[in-house]
Amino acid sequence: MEKDSVIILSGGVDSTTLLYYQKHRIALAVSFNYGSNHNGRELECARWQCSELGIEHLVIPLDFIGQYFQSSLLAGAEEIPKGDYDNENMKSTVVPFRNGIMLAIACGIAESRGLKHVMMANHGGDHAIYPDCRPEFTKAISEAMQAGTYERVTLIDPFTMYSKAEIVKLGKELGIDYSHTYSCYCGEELHCGECGTCRERKEAFNLAGMEDPVPYKSHS
Amino acid sequence: MEKDSVIILSGGVDSTTLLYYQKHRIALAVSFNYGSNHNGRELECARWQCSELGIEHLVIPLDFIGQYFQSSLLAGAEEIPKGDYDNENMKSTVVPFRNGIMLAIACGIAESRGLKHVMMANHGGDHAIYPDCRPEFTKAISEAMQAGTYERVTLIDPFTMYSKAEIVKLGKELGIDYSHTYSCYCGEELHCGECGTCRERKEAFNLAGMEDPVPYKSHS
Repeated sequence: MEKDSVIILSGGVDSTTLLYYQKHRIALAVSFNYGSNHNGRELECARWQCSELGIEHLVIPLDFIGQYFQSSLLAGAEEIPKGDYDNENMKSTVVPFRNGIMLAIACGIAESRGLKHVMMANHGGDHAIYPDCRPEFTKAISEAMQAGTYERVTLIDPFTMYSKAEIVKLGKELGIDYSHTYSCYCGEELHCGECGTCRERKEAFNLAGMEDPVPYKSHS
Repeated sequence: MEKDSVIILSGGVDSTTLLYYQKHRIALAVSFNYGSNHNGRELECARWQCSELGIEHLVIPLDFIGQYFQSSLLAGAEEIPKGDYDNENMKSTVVPFRNGIMLAIACGIAESRGLKHVMMANHGGDHAIYPDCRPEFTKAISEAMQAGTYERVTLIDPFTMYSKAEIVKLGKELGIDYSHTYSCYCGEELHCGECGTCRERKEAFNLAGMEDPVPYKSHS
């Protein structure tokens, strides 16, 4: 199959699974460094996985997000709320319109390279918290990408109706080494095990009946 | 009236006119530096106009565009085609999905600041050449901005059905000093007078029956 797509790759569980799932179509992976606590560790993982698969990997710095945007995700590990991955707890971690910005840049790169699609690993569990993960958003931005490019670039988001547990089950079938993925919003060496994204990750592996290969600081 | 909007300001004729036209609603102007030939002179003009009006002005560097995007606009003055502002001549100057990228970033800044709207000065004359200026694009991206933000940020583009001549006529009524605007894609001290954007500018002032206060190198 033709390699006709660019993927937005964070280095977390979801986008890494999409990378392996669609590797036959992916010409280029793009990661973004927006200066959050956990970006450094995520990017190391993204680089490792691309190198395993022999896929070209770009990192786009978005320093202006750290400078001008409001989000606890950008404010240091102590600002990250502990507890479940639910609406109230996680809302402060939202980086305004982050997916809109990443998709627009990836779309411009796709058009520059003659690629037809941008892939993103938004999934069902994100919908409640992040407005720029919901189907209403992804449908409209895909229409904007098509209308705004000569080649009518489209968005492909195959996990939009998956749960995170279904994603890691798929990843197991694909033989993914999840020890090279990073999820913790605190950004330290070990996953904290207590922030919303750590809890969401642990729950997904539990529901899938799989062992999570990353070590945690806390198992509360 | 409440200052509830951020404007995308290039420092050219169209966005400068929109700045004055909507100054009572504009809390913040955002310019982008994507490393094109003419960005430096445009940004000086944008800064001057904002300072005249006492409007806060941010410049967001987008170095990745110069690094990874294809466009003659990024390749040096000698690559800019001379001649009319028509489809074939100007297509090489398109920066892929530029308006999509600028709108997405401005939308994130609006949401961060509690502002409700992003203003952009796309106009009727852009439609033939730039896919990301057409109503099909602006409608879809405004829907994506609304769906992707808690505050349902919307796009306002009052000039979408104006010609450039109508824009400069409006600017005359508003008393704008167009000597502090810059349009030439070559980016030199004087407007070249021969590239597509210089010709489009001269034609607009002619049609409006106004004198263009900027000096040109050539009057061909």
